[in-house]
Amino acid sequence: MSAPAYAIVDWGTSSFRSWVLDNSGGVLNSDKTGQGMSTVNREDFPSVLEASMVRQAVPLSTPIVICGMAGAAQGWVEAPYAEIPTQLHDIHQFAVKPTNTARDVWIIPGLAQRSVTEPDVMRGEETILYGAMLLGNGDGVFCMPGTHSKWAFVIDGRVESFQTSMTGEVFALLVRHSTLTPFVSLDVGCLAHEKAFGDAVREALDKPHQILSSLFSVRSEPLLFGALQAGERTARLSGLLIGLEIAGLRGRSFNHVMLISSGEISDVYCAALKVAGMTFEVLDSEALVQAGLTQYAKQIVSL
Amino acid sequence: MSAPAYAIVDWGTSSFRSWVLDNSGGVLNSDKTGQGMSTVNREDFPSVLEASMVRQAVPLSTPIVICGMAGAAQGWVEAPYAEIPTQLHDIHQFAVKPTNTARDVWIIPGLAQRSVTEPDVMRGEETILYGAMLLGNGDGVFCMPGTHSKWAFVIDGRVESFQTSMTGEVFALLVRHSTLTPFVSLDVGCLAHEKAFGDAVREALDKPHQILSSLFSVRSEPLLFGALQAGERTARLSGLLIGLEIAGLRGRSFNHVMLISSGEISDVYCAALKVAGMTFEVLDSEALVQAGLTQYAKQIVSL
Repeated sequence: MSAPAYAIVDWGTSSFRSWVLDNSGGVLNSDKTGQGMSTVNREDFPSVLEASMVRQAVPLSTPIVICGMAGAAQGWVEAPYAEIPTQLHDIHQFAVKPTNTARDVWIIPGLAQRSVTEPDVMRGEETILYGAMLLGNGDGVFCMPGTHSKWAFVIDGRVESFQTSMTGEVFALLVRHSTLTPFVSLDVGCLAHEKAFGDAVREALDKPHQILSSLFSVRSEPLLFGALQAGERTARLSGLLIGLEIAGLRGRSFNHVMLISSGEISDVYCAALKVAGMTFEVLDSEALVQAGLTQYAKQIVSL
Repeated sequence: MSAPAYAIVDWGTSSFRSWVLDNSGGVLNSDKTGQGMSTVNREDFPSVLEASMVRQAVPLSTPIVICGMAGAAQGWVEAPYAEIPTQLHDIHQFAVKPTNTARDVWIIPGLAQRSVTEPDVMRGEETILYGAMLLGNGDGVFCMPGTHSKWAFVIDGRVESFQTSMTGEVFALLVRHSTLTPFVSLDVGCLAHEKAFGDAVREALDKPHQILSSLFSVRSEPLLFGALQAGERTARLSGLLIGLEIAGLRGRSFNHVMLISSGEISDVYCAALKVAGMTFEVLDSEALVQAGLTQYAKQIVSL
């Protein structure tokens, strides 16, 4: 087995993913846990990392490069945001080095859009976008769906602007804690109810300003017509919110989207983008973050 | 003291309000508790009512007329919705009579808008609107803010259409259970931060389709600028959602609103309506529901 050259870590809000690489970028080992920022106390970041490095047999001297929420103010150590339109390949220059570990650790900062009218932040997605660039998808419109969906507009290797939507979080709040809760279900996939989902996407695209009423109709519709089952109503709720997210991009001129996603949420967004008349290709976020982190690691080591 | 002629009850989701009236509509007694539909088991409605009638010394033979969620499917006994555009003064004809009480009880039904594209329901607001009509504000555009805000368009004593927005509920979910929670506060009144509130109303009116991003900015703005205090951010969140509710009425032509509300929420909506360039007058919901229920009671007794 070749010697480890770098270890890389994608340390998000709810997950920890690591890979150990040799000099040519080959993967020697990997690790994945649920120890995301939200479940780790500030002082425990070094020991959580150490345990993973031990599991992966990484020598003490191996440089470790981390992206994601570990660099948030409430993470391990704050890595102040780089500001757009910083070149994606330059962001490693702003990496910060925690001092409370014997390891050679570097945390890549996120990106900030310091706009008074559209302030926005990302952490982790900058590395995914860099990976996309390295793998041949550098410029264009990127959609990274999730709890806080990010849309990024990349030109000449720089993020020109980006937009975060609380789509996944609002969906989860309404499914779990609202008066809609008895009428919906998390058990059933949205795409089992393609028509209800597509109609809802269209409704939100047509009438985004009426979303607060459209949401209530998820409750009143079964009271009046009794027709939709819980799965269909869930599909409708999901379609309304994803349609609203896409409506939020109105005014920007593009038709092709690079969707960075995997699993069920990827299928759901593909269906929504189709309804919105957009073309798209799907890129795998894990491959991209790995590519981006690997290259940042090489650049940091060669500094 | 004159003899009780009727007892009336406004039985909502979270509150129970009752008045006892003499033949000329004078109030002999009243009662108010937090025993709304959401806290009362189905089989306990008769005993909750009985306890209030005993507290108010109402004889067994006195007719009792109830509006609100007591008539919901999950309430005491379902009072099937009357359908718009039923005349407001005719709704009592569809009242239902629970059989599991020795009292002479009548429950006024709510109203349904049985539209496939805009299905909607109300319970209790029909009686408020009837009260407004009786007190000389019959026709026009009515706004009844709350957990589920209702806007009703009344012409010639009939509700022609109405629209429910989940404004208050979405606000409460975001304040209590979301990633915005650490950034906001329920302690501070919105109107202490008039500029933050007004700017947010304007932003939502201008860009309702970007609401999912505007909501996220409540989080990213303090990360980037650190400027707003929790109270201002709460004002901003409230302004965004009330602005979005008003944006939802876009396309309907009206400029004057009858705002049925009281207390702090009334002041907040007044401020929002001003920002939206609307004129308004404020009507007290308690006086209106009392007037509406009293008249329905008279009509039912004379049937």
